Amino acid sequence: MKDVAREAGVALGTVSKVVNGLPVGDSYRIRVEEAIKKLHYQVNSYAQGLKANKTYTVALLLPNTQEPFFASLAYHINLALLKRKYRMLLCCTDFDLSQEQEYVTMAQQNKVDGIIGLTYNPNLVVEENTPFVAIDRSMGPKIPCVASDNFAGGQLAAEKLADFGCRRVAFLRIGSSLNNEPNKRRAGFENGCLSRGLSCEMKILNDGESYEEFEKFLAAHIRDGRLAFDGIFCVTDGLAHCVIKMLRRLDQRVPEDVQVIGFDGIRYFGSEEYICSTIVQPVPDIAEMCVELLLQENMPSKPPLICLPVTYGDGGTTLNEYREV
Amino acid sequence: MKDVAREAGVALGTVSKVVNGLPVGDSYRIRVEEAIKKLHYQVNSYAQGLKANKTYTVALLLPNTQEPFFASLAYHINLALLKRKYRMLLCCTDFDLSQEQEYVTMAQQNKVDGIIGLTYNPNLVVEENTPFVAIDRSMGPKIPCVASDNFAGGQLAAEKLADFGCRRVAFLRIGSSLNNEPNKRRAGFENGCLSRGLSCEMKILNDGESYEEFEKFLAAHIRDGRLAFDGIFCVTDGLAHCVIKMLRRLDQRVPEDVQVIGFDGIRYFGSEEYICSTIVQPVPDIAEMCVELLLQENMPSKPPLICLPVTYGDGGTTLNEYREV
Repeated sequence: MKDVAREAGVALGTVSKVVNGLPVGDSYRIRVEEAIKKLHYQVNSYAQGLKANKTYTVALLLPNTQEPFFASLAYHINLALLKRKYRMLLCCTDFDLSQEQEYVTMAQQNKVDGIIGLTYNPNLVVEENTPFVAIDRSMGPKIPCVASDNFAGGQLAAEKLADFGCRRVAFLRIGSSLNNEPNKRRAGFENGCLSRGLSCEMKILNDGESYEEFEKFLAAHIRDGRLAFDGIFCVTDGLAHCVIKMLRRLDQRVPEDVQVIGFDGIRYFGSEEYICSTIVQPVPDIAEMCVELLLQENMPSKPPLICLPVTYGDGGTTLNEYREV
Repeated sequence: MKDVAREAGVALGTVSKVVNGLPVGDSYRIRVEEAIKKLHYQVNSYAQGLKANKTYTVALLLPNTQEPFFASLAYHINLALLKRKYRMLLCCTDFDLSQEQEYVTMAQQNKVDGIIGLTYNPNLVVEENTPFVAIDRSMGPKIPCVASDNFAGGQLAAEKLADFGCRRVAFLRIGSSLNNEPNKRRAGFENGCLSRGLSCEMKILNDGESYEEFEKFLAAHIRDGRLAFDGIFCVTDGLAHCVIKMLRRLDQRVPEDVQVIGFDGIRYFGSEEYICSTIVQPVPDIAEMCVELLLQENMPSKPPLICLPVTYGDGGTTLNEYREV
């Protein structure tokens, strides 16, 4: 920094101000910036971090990056941070809850600037003033939660099935029994069924129950080779994928005999092609919103819950046109 | 740290030694550790990083986390690092080559302890003494490269097709024209075909050519409704997925008319089920090896290329038994 000051012909304090983004006269700033360029001066971000209490690093807590929805979140949040010259620490939390808590502690101690977290760990303690943005699960009144509009998504699934001629539908759900945003999919679907006059049956597995329960449920609803449902809404694309295989084993054709809609918008190999007909989560928008909210320092009260709009994606497991029954 | 020294009744320097892992008498170490526990003393890792020139942080460079193979690498490398109490910075490189170079500079300046990188950026400059472990592509004689045994994988694909009764096979390839380990799949496959007496045709797309060329190639090899090949080896599962759809459009049944083997070992939604019959890359082993090599400080000469064994996975697009022709 001394060399830069000498080269620019300014005081050391002026260089420090420019480097730390503090206000300084334009002519000084330009001279310092030119000297920095000329000398290839590199800011030591650790020293800078100590001083400014800023690390330009954000931690992302995710269960894993194996499941496609999480993989896509990791990718888009990474891009959103890199675009803003922030670094991202990734912490897959599936196997180490204490690790997860450690990252929260890091944020409290200003060793990272903040955390974006999708966690179903009921024991994770996040103080209200820790810079934290949650995905899909509310973590407290002062911690913003970003999610898809899951209720509208459930409703959209019911409306699409009705549009495509279904009359008797089923809703299949697995997943965390913790209170979280995706649980609104069910209520939205029920609401949509009611308003469109669809009869609806629910099969909701408890924690620890096996997928086989769904196959038993479906088999129990077949009479004379015909399934009692002409439409099924699955709470995720992952479940839809399994259910479609079960239906084929039960000699039910998809979508001719029974139409299936999932949730998430998972595509094959990052291509344009959906794994099944689906309610598409706006992952790039979720990523941008999380990063914006986290890095927005001068917001007196951050919104507690942001729901972003979903869309319908055709993946070939629906008829996509009105069918006479 | 002063409080810890007072609590433990030892000199400040002793606390510092314990915290930095330097040798100190056992009784002192135990007293310091107990005091640390009692006072909930947290090491400031930034200050520690400055002092010890160690950050306990490793950067991972990947094209993205959308493609399942990369997503799986990110996950397993993350676990391998967290297990060792290291943090991982993720940098998806697809869209920002300068960002990528910046991480290399960070490693040179000891701002991260090292880099694990899978990059096809021909312009990336990595000096030989930068702590760097490359995946799938050799970056210089002093930088270890970890990969699957791609040659053996190609060979295994040919042997499996032969075992399952194929006689006339094809190899389809897309991907980077840069010199890299996965390019050995072709040579391995050719070798396997030769030794098992399979006739083999190649279709290799150049950078920028569209997948449609494969469909034209296949269509040109159909006479009287019969495809000239009874087995196809695709360079990735992603390609195999597309090719299987092409074959169905061309009225060829998979696996009855033509068997297809891909490469990577991609599974649906992290389940046990493969997307197609495939040569499985040992991703957890690749991850462990990369981390071991990177953090191994006292290795005078690191091995330049490590090839890890692959296996065959049945995904239902092969017959998996001898077929009389």
